[in-house]
Amino acid sequence: MLAITTSPLTARSFAPFGDVLEVAGAPDKLINQGLCGRFHDRARLDFDPGGRAGISLFDAQPRALPYRLDLVERHPEGSQAFIPMHEQPFLVIVAQDLSGIPDTPQAFVTNGAQGINFHRNIWHGVLTPLSHPGRFAVIDRIGATPNLEEYWFSTPWEVRGPV
Amino acid sequence: MLAITTSPLTARSFAPFGDVLEVAGAPDKLINQGLCGRFHDRARLDFDPGGRAGISLFDAQPRALPYRLDLVERHPEGSQAFIPMHEQPFLVIVAQDLSGIPDTPQAFVTNGAQGINFHRNIWHGVLTPLSHPGRFAVIDRIGATPNLEEYWFSTPWEVRGPV
Repeated sequence: MLAITTSPLTARSFAPFGDVLEVAGAPDKLINQGLCGRFHDRARLDFDPGGRAGISLFDAQPRALPYRLDLVERHPEGSQAFIPMHEQPFLVIVAQDLSGIPDTPQAFVTNGAQGINFHRNIWHGVLTPLSHPGRFAVIDRIGATPNLEEYWFSTPWEVRGPV
Repeated sequence: MLAITTSPLTARSFAPFGDVLEVAGAPDKLINQGLCGRFHDRARLDFDPGGRAGISLFDAQPRALPYRLDLVERHPEGSQAFIPMHEQPFLVIVAQDLSGIPDTPQAFVTNGAQGINFHRNIWHGVLTPLSHPGRFAVIDRIGATPNLEEYWFSTPWEVRGPV
């Protein structure tokens, strides 16, 4: 298997694929008599007009590194955000598109305080928490038409933590 | 001060005010080769056509019980969901409306694995985590027009934990 090494997730490195949802820097606004910082409108939500935004919960089984990656998927009808309902890091895998085929995947690990929003039609791995609980709120497109394209790698990738 | 006692948050008790966002019961669908349960579309998102859904982050200072409640607010232009990015309980205060004035408030404490979605125009207290970190993802209405009505109680309420 070919190997990929994980990197820490940062807004900058993730920008080609989506948004990092985190409390970082100064808030856009202080609310509630100064007791709460609002970091305003941090995800590019983008849904086909036939669908709409919805909030679902995902409960996923934890995985471990090294992780065998044989599948990525994408959603042509909408963006998809994952908000961890815990403070545990999770694994985020994405790939650029090369004429309809995913390029070499990139793997990131969150710092425990970050959510993510995959932009519409970005290739990504399935939800891969690295510890219990694998509980996330997901903001994605609710609609009646198919919204899933899968790509199975002919040779799986091994996703490794940094040495 | 008049006193209110908190109750554990349940979907049933919270139904007049909004949705409890939690992994409970059987998932609506198993995805990712059976490794992830999807609890589908669990929040009634409801935004004025002049606005749209957005994801923001809130970073709020923790409070303690007993808590002095002198203010509730409501958002005429849209629902507002709070997803805790941690596993700590938080305090949720709501009130029915009586001809434009909030009725006696009700107070709930989450179990650490629950988010909430306030339905549009429901009176509620400001975000009140009970411990660090006070970090939440918030799905609410993004728009240019005012979307906040406040009500200050002439006599504050004391919100107490159960004896």
